[in-house]
Amino acid sequence: MKNGYTIGDVWSFERHHQALPPPDAPSHVVLGLDGGTTSTVCVCIPLQHLHLHPHSDPPPLLARAVAGCSNHNSVGEAAARETLEQVMAEALSKSGSNRSAVQAVCLGVSGVNHPTDQEMILSWLRPIFPSHVKLYVQNDSVAALASGTMGKLHGCVLIAGTGCISYGITEDGREARAAGAGPVLGDWGSGYGIAAQALTAIIRAQDGRGPQTMLTNSILNTLGLSSSDELIGWTYADRSWARIAALVPEVVSCAEAGDQIANKILVDAVQELALSVKAVVQRLCLCGEDGNGSFPIVMVGGVLEANKRWDIGKEVISCIHKNFPGARPIRPKVEPAVGAALLAWNFLTKESKGNCYS
Amino acid sequence: MKNGYTIGDVWSFERHHQALPPPDAPSHVVLGLDGGTTSTVCVCIPLQHLHLHPHSDPPPLLARAVAGCSNHNSVGEAAARETLEQVMAEALSKSGSNRSAVQAVCLGVSGVNHPTDQEMILSWLRPIFPSHVKLYVQNDSVAALASGTMGKLHGCVLIAGTGCISYGITEDGREARAAGAGPVLGDWGSGYGIAAQALTAIIRAQDGRGPQTMLTNSILNTLGLSSSDELIGWTYADRSWARIAALVPEVVSCAEAGDQIANKILVDAVQELALSVKAVVQRLCLCGEDGNGSFPIVMVGGVLEANKRWDIGKEVISCIHKNFPGARPIRPKVEPAVGAALLAWNFLTKESKGNCYS
Repeated sequence: MKNGYTIGDVWSFERHHQALPPPDAPSHVVLGLDGGTTSTVCVCIPLQHLHLHPHSDPPPLLARAVAGCSNHNSVGEAAARETLEQVMAEALSKSGSNRSAVQAVCLGVSGVNHPTDQEMILSWLRPIFPSHVKLYVQNDSVAALASGTMGKLHGCVLIAGTGCISYGITEDGREARAAGAGPVLGDWGSGYGIAAQALTAIIRAQDGRGPQTMLTNSILNTLGLSSSDELIGWTYADRSWARIAALVPEVVSCAEAGDQIANKILVDAVQELALSVKAVVQRLCLCGEDGNGSFPIVMVGGVLEANKRWDIGKEVISCIHKNFPGARPIRPKVEPAVGAALLAWNFLTKESKGNCYS
Repeated sequence: MKNGYTIGDVWSFERHHQALPPPDAPSHVVLGLDGGTTSTVCVCIPLQHLHLHPHSDPPPLLARAVAGCSNHNSVGEAAARETLEQVMAEALSKSGSNRSAVQAVCLGVSGVNHPTDQEMILSWLRPIFPSHVKLYVQNDSVAALASGTMGKLHGCVLIAGTGCISYGITEDGREARAAGAGPVLGDWGSGYGIAAQALTAIIRAQDGRGPQTMLTNSILNTLGLSSSDELIGWTYADRSWARIAALVPEVVSCAEAGDQIANKILVDAVQELALSVKAVVQRLCLCGEDGNGSFPIVMVGGVLEANKRWDIGKEVISCIHKNFPGARPIRPKVEPAVGAALLAWNFLTKESKGNCYS
């Protein structure tokens, strides 16, 4: 039993490190964590490098660890807590460091929508780390923004992976977000939303409510199912959102092959994603008084990656530019977990900014 | 342990009945069960009455028992199995009868979409009942149709409660269904679908993607929440579909008070429900060659109950009549569980019809 639940002793490596410290173990590190709805990534970065090279090229990673979903709305609180602790322990263990070397931890976690979510995760972190460690918990969109701006909190970010969210912050710290409320609450531009609409189109084609579509053969083949009736059982056999979202490539392929239903699903998703960015930009007035001001728009997540002829990310940018010609798209050079680590360092050096709870 | 899982000995009452049989215990009974996504009802009916008064007024109930959701797609297989066994045991116990008096059992269960679902539930039933008992498993829509036609399998039924489905059958036994694929797969006319769209409208109003709506105050007040942000946590705290669907009366109230967003949600739901009926009627040609033929359309479920100014069921019928003027709406006088019992009797007396697996 550890902190009230059984997870095995994920910190046992520290006894070994204390007995035989690696010769090159850094004396001070920060942890950055990106907790998404599909996977969770934790990186460990030496503090010394950040002091010498702030806001520069990608920092060196001492270690990187990967685990599953840590969105408590998707997998429940116990599983989310266990995943977060394990992935942080693994990153520290791989780095040759231990908890006493940690100066700050920044977690960007999807499903953090309210101060009570933030407080819940902080309550999981406090018993883990020594009291001097600064702890920061944010929505994963904040870390994603920082991954595009190399730690500077200004502009807008759009994440579209299994889930989707748009988040923005002004130079003077005003924040806004749109979408990010999960599949029940209308995140139709997310990978889950796109794939769920494709599955729905198959059911409607089969029962006579909608036109025939290439999606039927494409997705049934991918899933190894022999009929649309079996799709219902498949859908509810597992509550994982990521499993559904994994079907997005089939939707893109069908749209590229000329299927009108698949095409409409992607066009609608583009509209939804662009709308969520517009809502944030307008509320924060990121585009200036005349609407032409320049601001960064960071694009993150598998749905927005430009690797297909039907390029969802490019279409979203095109939509945004119609309203906001000054939007400057950024495809981050580092991953969101590194963005979280850069935030940890920024918060640490400017304690007046951000929310410090420790 | 019973049949591989622990449920306590729900059949222990039989030892008492065998020792002291109630003086008026009927020698032969049938069980009818309606397993919905919100609740499960089981009734016990004396066989003698059905022999003397087939297709007549509501039959006398020896007993009626109620339990929770038995849709395995919603609550999982173990919980669905336990609920089904418990509610049947309770109905038999209350009737003063026992399993040796049972001649036939008909279960109409939501979530039965494929022969494998049917076979799974039959495999739960076989170890429970003596081998002479005839066992029938159907989708709950079949029992609902029978509740409107007093056991005759002909016509179309529309169920709109927590879930929704349209099912039809011709005099010569051809069947079709539409919708009934659950919330992930586009059952937008269901109570869950209506309420989820209302919750989505609140999120969109809050984050700037949609217009303000009365739904915000109405639903937050009903749930005792102080902000829209808290709605996300509430939504994912519990996976029950029925909990979301319970908000339909708030949507109807807002629409009646003139809220355009709530009104549009209900208008869309009416279109979806009417479309699912049309798809079934067309595939089965229930309306005859000229489209004007007469057929029964049985209306079942809380969403269709006529108790409000904004009457969803009436609007659906009005929509259906535009295409099929010969559709004869029926509001059943008995509940779907009684429909299932009437089916059990029908199947028993005409073994050539229906699927008999025992």
